[in-house]
Amino acid sequence: MSTLTHFSFCPRSRAIRLALAERGIDVAFAEERPWTWSPALLALNPAGEVPVLQQEDGIVVCGAYAIAEYLAIAPATDPEAGDPDHRKPLALLPGNPAAQAEVRRLVDWFHFKLDREVTAPLLEAHVLPLFKGTAHAAPEPEVLRAAHANLAYHLGYVSWLSDQRNWLAGDALSYADLAAAGHISCLDYLGEIDWARFAPAKVWYQRLKSRRSFQGLLADRVPGRLPSAVYTELDF
Amino acid sequence: MSTLTHFSFCPRSRAIRLALAERGIDVAFAEERPWTWSPALLALNPAGEVPVLQQEDGIVVCGAYAIAEYLAIAPATDPEAGDPDHRKPLALLPGNPAAQAEVRRLVDWFHFKLDREVTAPLLEAHVLPLFKGTAHAAPEPEVLRAAHANLAYHLGYVSWLSDQRNWLAGDALSYADLAAAGHISCLDYLGEIDWARFAPAKVWYQRLKSRRSFQGLLADRVPGRLPSAVYTELDF
Repeated sequence: MSTLTHFSFCPRSRAIRLALAERGIDVAFAEERPWTWSPALLALNPAGEVPVLQQEDGIVVCGAYAIAEYLAIAPATDPEAGDPDHRKPLALLPGNPAAQAEVRRLVDWFHFKLDREVTAPLLEAHVLPLFKGTAHAAPEPEVLRAAHANLAYHLGYVSWLSDQRNWLAGDALSYADLAAAGHISCLDYLGEIDWARFAPAKVWYQRLKSRRSFQGLLADRVPGRLPSAVYTELDF
Repeated sequence: MSTLTHFSFCPRSRAIRLALAERGIDVAFAEERPWTWSPALLALNPAGEVPVLQQEDGIVVCGAYAIAEYLAIAPATDPEAGDPDHRKPLALLPGNPAAQAEVRRLVDWFHFKLDREVTAPLLEAHVLPLFKGTAHAAPEPEVLRAAHANLAYHLGYVSWLSDQRNWLAGDALSYADLAAAGHISCLDYLGEIDWARFAPAKVWYQRLKSRRSFQGLLADRVPGRLPSAVYTELDF
């Protein structure tokens, strides 16, 4: 069996956990906390970053970019084949080059723009200190204010996309949805999202959260901080 | 003809300019300064970021990730077919999944790790103020010290890879080399690189810089700052 080395509150790791589940690929999980620079992680990935997928045949695939593209061409089964809404195998990346470009544009949007402008500063302020067991340094109010303003803009964009399309990048569930969910699920754990203000995004997220692939994420916990009241609710 | 919207000192734009030239794809260039939030750029790419490739058929491909993957499957000609060292068409992405993963791991390394730890802070300090025409705020010495220490580590890694392999990700020139060159060429312009300390990296960069694809980059100039003495030298 392959092994995914990940960190439970790393949004990119979460996106890859969802992708593995959607592709019906069973893996063992190894958790690493990237800031500890563990020799085991550095031996796998000299960048010291997660996620890392180790295949049984010895191939090591480092980073969400390489793993997503690798899984897109790996054989898949369909974990939700019994679900009438999802009878086709889940490709996560469409076949047509223009549609692929749209998926990848949005993956970049979430993994880099949303991350830099919202998720990274909020996780840095509210989650990492609890894992590190360090004194909870008071986060800078200006950084938090900027992250909250940016979050409203990003949720507005997700709402707009959800209103125009069946899934964020088009007709089919794709890596764009999973990348977004990696981040939004962390923010939802923290209770940062005022869902009532973003109705189409809420409908999109409810559909996604109800999928079997999401169950692992909903079981994750930050030490010393309970999830928001809605985190595990499928109908929130 | 297709159009590439780019910024001359954006490392990711540079990597894509190299890729287009290596694939033998002629494009028109449009330059944008992403910090100006120009309506034309936002209409093309709502993220307001470069590079963006507009195909003649109307397809718009946003971001270095989507463009590189798009070009990897687009038809290519070989611009250096007459050069005995480069007789095969340049795929930039190998066919084998493990080798692809290695290319993508390194692309991430350069576009995100090297960018965050070195290129972005040094461009922010020494290049962007000259384009913006703003007062050259004194860069924070601690930020510069950290970027310089990180740069030595990254060049050590490039040297190590160059010593082990023909090109950074393996036998063939790939997106890994072009991503590295996008950043290293900006740093070389600024005279930040002490090439004598990194002999294998220097040999690798000399080979790359001598390719026809590099000529466009060597003509770029920062207003009010001449390039380092070695920037345009092929034998430095």
